[in-house]
Amino acid sequence: MDFYSDNAAGVHPAVLAAVTGAAGPHAKGYDADDWTARLDAAFGALFETPCRVFAVPSGTAANALGLAAMLPPWGALWCEREAHVEVDEAGAVPFYSGGATHLLVAGAHGKLSVEALSEAAGRRRGDVHQTQAAALSLTQATEAGTVYAPDEIAALSAWARARGCRVHMDGARFANAVAHLGCAPADVTWRAGVEILSFGCIKNGGMSAEALVVFAPDLAASIPHRRKRAGLMPSKGRFAAAQLLAMIDGGVWLANARAANAGAAAIAAAVPQRLLHPVQANEVFLRLDADERQALRRQGFGFYEWESDGPGAARLVVRWDADSHAIAALVAALRAL
Amino acid sequence: MDFYSDNAAGVHPAVLAAVTGAAGPHAKGYDADDWTARLDAAFGALFETPCRVFAVPSGTAANALGLAAMLPPWGALWCEREAHVEVDEAGAVPFYSGGATHLLVAGAHGKLSVEALSEAAGRRRGDVHQTQAAALSLTQATEAGTVYAPDEIAALSAWARARGCRVHMDGARFANAVAHLGCAPADVTWRAGVEILSFGCIKNGGMSAEALVVFAPDLAASIPHRRKRAGLMPSKGRFAAAQLLAMIDGGVWLANARAANAGAAAIAAAVPQRLLHPVQANEVFLRLDADERQALRRQGFGFYEWESDGPGAARLVVRWDADSHAIAALVAALRAL
Amino acid sequence: MDFYSDNAAGVHPAVLAAVTGAAGPHAKGYDADDWTARLDAAFGALFETPCRVFAVPSGTAANALGLAAMLPPWGALWCEREAHVEVDEAGAVPFYSGGATHLLVAGAHGKLSVEALSEAAGRRRGDVHQTQAAALSLTQATEAGTVYAPDEIAALSAWARARGCRVHMDGARFANAVAHLGCAPADVTWRAGVEILSFGCIKNGGMSAEALVVFAPDLAASIPHRRKRAGLMPSKGRFAAAQLLAMIDGGVWLANARAANAGAAAIAAAVPQRLLHPVQANEVFLRLDADERQALRRQGFGFYEWESDGPGAARLVVRWDADSHAIAALVAALRAL
Amino acid sequence: MDFYSDNAAGVHPAVLAAVTGAAGPHAKGYDADDWTARLDAAFGALFETPCRVFAVPSGTAANALGLAAMLPPWGALWCEREAHVEVDEAGAVPFYSGGATHLLVAGAHGKLSVEALSEAAGRRRGDVHQTQAAALSLTQATEAGTVYAPDEIAALSAWARARGCRVHMDGARFANAVAHLGCAPADVTWRAGVEILSFGCIKNGGMSAEALVVFAPDLAASIPHRRKRAGLMPSKGRFAAAQLLAMIDGGVWLANARAANAGAAAIAAAVPQRLLHPVQANEVFLRLDADERQALRRQGFGFYEWESDGPGAARLVVRWDADSHAIAALVAALRAL
Repeated sequence: MDFYSDNAAGVHPAVLAAVTGAAGPHAKGYDADDWTARLDAAFGALFETPCRVFAVPSGTAANALGLAAMLPPWGALWCEREAHVEVDEAGAVPFYSGGATHLLVAGAHGKLSVEALSEAAGRRRGDVHQTQAAALSLTQATEAGTVYAPDEIAALSAWARARGCRVHMDGARFANAVAHLGCAPADVTWRAGVEILSFGCIKNGGMSAEALVVFAPDLAASIPHRRKRAGLMPSKGRFAAAQLLAMIDGGVWLANARAANAGAAAIAAAVPQRLLHPVQANEVFLRLDADERQALRRQGFGFYEWESDGPGAARLVVRWDADSHAIAALVAALRAL
Repeated sequence: MDFYSDNAAGVHPAVLAAVTGAAGPHAKGYDADDWTARLDAAFGALFETPCRVFAVPSGTAANALGLAAMLPPWGALWCEREAHVEVDEAGAVPFYSGGATHLLVAGAHGKLSVEALSEAAGRRRGDVHQTQAAALSLTQATEAGTVYAPDEIAALSAWARARGCRVHMDGARFANAVAHLGCAPADVTWRAGVEILSFGCIKNGGMSAEALVVFAPDLAASIPHRRKRAGLMPSKGRFAAAQLLAMIDGGVWLANARAANAGAAAIAAAVPQRLLHPVQANEVFLRLDADERQALRRQGFGFYEWESDGPGAARLVVRWDADSHAIAALVAALRAL
Repeated sequence: MDFYSDNAAGVHPAVLAAVTGAAGPHAKGYDADDWTARLDAAFGALFETPCRVFAVPSGTAANALGLAAMLPPWGALWCEREAHVEVDEAGAVPFYSGGATHLLVAGAHGKLSVEALSEAAGRRRGDVHQTQAAALSLTQATEAGTVYAPDEIAALSAWARARGCRVHMDGARFANAVAHLGCAPADVTWRAGVEILSFGCIKNGGMSAEALVVFAPDLAASIPHRRKRAGLMPSKGRFAAAQLLAMIDGGVWLANARAANAGAAAIAAAVPQRLLHPVQANEVFLRLDADERQALRRQGFGFYEWESDGPGAARLVVRWDADSHAIAALVAALRAL
Repeated sequence: MDFYSDNAAGVHPAVLAAVTGAAGPHAKGYDADDWTARLDAAFGALFETPCRVFAVPSGTAANALGLAAMLPPWGALWCEREAHVEVDEAGAVPFYSGGATHLLVAGAHGKLSVEALSEAAGRRRGDVHQTQAAALSLTQATEAGTVYAPDEIAALSAWARARGCRVHMDGARFANAVAHLGCAPADVTWRAGVEILSFGCIKNGGMSAEALVVFAPDLAASIPHRRKRAGLMPSKGRFAAAQLLAMIDGGVWLANARAANAGAAAIAAAVPQRLLHPVQANEVFLRLDADERQALRRQGFGFYEWESDGPGAARLVVRWDADSHAIAALVAALRAL
């Protein structure tokens, strides 16, 4: 009964079928195949706007490519201090951008606020002796499992734009956020000022491809060059593109996210007094003391301790394909503590 | 009847079955799965020596990671002037290494020689005002479809080692070379001084993973860090590892290469007087004038003109899954020219 | 009456004489001159140990070169959150290292402590998903005008070494620190674990050269290459080397620092209740409200407000060649507030 | 009697006086001084056009900064195969640009031609799998001591512009070229399409500063950031700016270059049959066999063998302050061979 990570999840049958379907026929290499050719239009329909879409093999690659398109080598990136780009991507942004730095801001429940950003920006001079703030990265859903509302994103984007910063969204769990909000994907992206989105698929039933979705035309120009020289351009691109198409065809992405969110909500409802953050996506952060953690582990529940939320914090992630019996068992076990 | 590129090939059934087999079960993310755990031992058995193996999503990624492990930012790489790293990877080596440059040497039929390297090295001072030669990259089979014999590789490696250079092999078509030579994989790699090998799978029946095989233990240390920050470390690593295991289990890699080589040999045998290079792998370079090229195209044969071999040059690549009827038709059409 | 910065200071006559003396004769270019040849021995005598010395044109260049020699591209640097490398060098460390990041730790009065470092280090996992801590940079004297004692440096170095981190010292005001401590230069550098020192000259009576002093032989190897390709290697190197030699010949560096420190001490003694930090070098940080700042400015005193020390903070820097009348006038004006 | 390099030359008295004159007074740091403030206007007058001027400590720094402003990390630079940026700057362009590569073209007597560039460009595909040609660097005077006429530069610039490439000039010996041509500086720079010029001073009587002159306003924007983070921005900038102003005030730069050129012309006139290249600046390339070289060395003449011009080639450089007796002696010795 594994609540460690959504990366442990299986692959959705539709994604597997798409990969299998692409395996037989011959196709031109390097993005000249029919699957890749459909990407822009398919995501354009989903997002109700023209966009450019690039398949990449990881969320780190998506974030780093997208942010490098925004950041000069002497640029600086505003992000939450627990953002994945800061704590889990081994310096991918400095690598891809040629040296850009991160400007870390703490946010309640993982969410940046205009107030906190303004306060931090006020402490910088921004003259030639400093790196130049050039981008803002929002994580949706956040690393604390919370979700920005459309107007929150719009306000943060407006703050960024007023300071010459471009707006990126790390959407490793974008589907979970949209499932929670019940809004159109456009409402929390380009309509709210987001210019590039890392659209997460792998955690959510995908296999080995994520989508980098570029809404701002000027930001798309450098990405083919950056992607190729990083070795991220697949020679048999149809296998990546087919996965992405399968995820959005028929709403697989949203159905999977809803299932995962529902599991997390059930867990949260069982122990509201233990919650460290509101549960709005598929992650549950709980206060559990050492005895309680041990008791759960003894019953076969796997999860990470989460020290960035302080001692006694634990993170439980619900996968899109989580076993409903496992969730029920966890709910019972938590209630019994 | 497509002779453009081996990247157009399908995926071998064993590879597809491996991917499908990995899709159902849950598994730990980020190289902690059982498939990834088997990689070192499986390739160690194939190469008869301990080694470290990293799955990466493209040949460009394999080459750039491996070479970056050898080259300081002020380093320089000896390679053939038509090497893939030079003409087809968009500056991946400078990107991954932080600025290393290429030292280009021309070779007959795509093969470097100790003489040509020595002559070029003799024209450099190598003082602090210049980049520092630090690596040699051999392509096996070469971009001209030729193959280095074990003793040729050993001589080139010895030349490199005597000058403080490490030895890399771009083996995008390594299988075709081994199939041609009938030797052990070890004979043209570590036994002949090769320290890192980009072991190509995708062109040869794979789907989306290549193997970076590191024979020199000291060169392995930096690769996990470089791979992670480049976004090349897959979160569901089992799908990449499963492909690599399937390629070498039961000798799929070698069988596929033999099939492709045999097709190329049949074409070459039909028009020996037109050959620009000896045909030793799965590529055939022919002299064809404009009328002849047009005649072939009109009959439905697809192939690239190949200006780096001069005007009137054409390249025909035989895939592992090439249709025997198409090859027979091509042979007939060439004879009829 | 300028208390803005020690960069406003003039050039010491001995330095000017050395430059003039080097201007006439012909000399070999690129570090092959007689002045450059003397650098290692001269600094070796001063520091009582063999060392390698490189002339560079700025403190930023010295810090970045020295730290790049310690940090892999995926490395991370422990430093105080107001360290010059973090707030005033525009990302020079990421540029020179190929992407290394800064790990910021707050310290009382600008000084790092083992406790604060340990606490911060305890919050990092340090696995392959994160940048790898590889160096510690100490600033001596600190950005708050305070000075580390030899045993404090030794303790911090030991902490770093135990974690595989190398130790760098930003000594833009190293002379002021040594003047305050009355110790041997060796006592606060290599004897206390410091491996590379940026030995500041320009603020302290120099013209256009700083000394990068490398005590750890293994760290010296890459620096000539890094320095050349950064354009930091002067073609007429004698003018840089001559300045450095003039600074240390006869103790100019120490005499200048003593003069500056004495001025700062006089100011501090006048208004002990206003001091934000102990005054141990040539910088005085004061609490001054808006009216008081305006009153001082009206009397002709120039200085910076210093918001990193909170509202109402001001920084006054005493130059090595500060006019004693100006200092006396400032003392009187401060007392009269 | 040293004919090794113009870097061995002394400093012109006007430059030394300017440095001395800047040493006494206090001045604001970091380009806020009065000397730096005059740079743009002074060079603007010399070049008869508005421009931005940045003082840097070496020709390598000037070239690398200027070219980095033109080249994206995946960019490529057209240059002559013996250009200083290629053979003597240790990979500064890849470092500063984040990985751009050099496209080498051979030219008769060190001069690029539209024909040779077109031929080389015709062999590149320029698709996303390759680096993108983005700049052309001309060396004036060339590494072979020859000089481009204004119309030659205009033709090369036009070729570059038509392919989306910006135009840089490495003017380490720009003064010698202008002295030879007798034209206005504008005629061989912006009027002929040059957008950034590395204006060499150090070889020509300067001490430790070169001028980077930017004619294209859009290319100036990134340079302050690049210069600062590279540690090239001097804290006491007045000493660099004062040198540059002294070089152009009253035509010191041109007078010095004329003197050096005249010495070279005298040598060339003595042995026209030995010349490997036309002598148009201050460098003389001669055919000398081993006995002849030894005979000259025995008489006290110092010079470099120059293998890039083939066996038996020697380079003799005449400094701005070359002793007329030494030149006369050399002329006599050459005639006597």
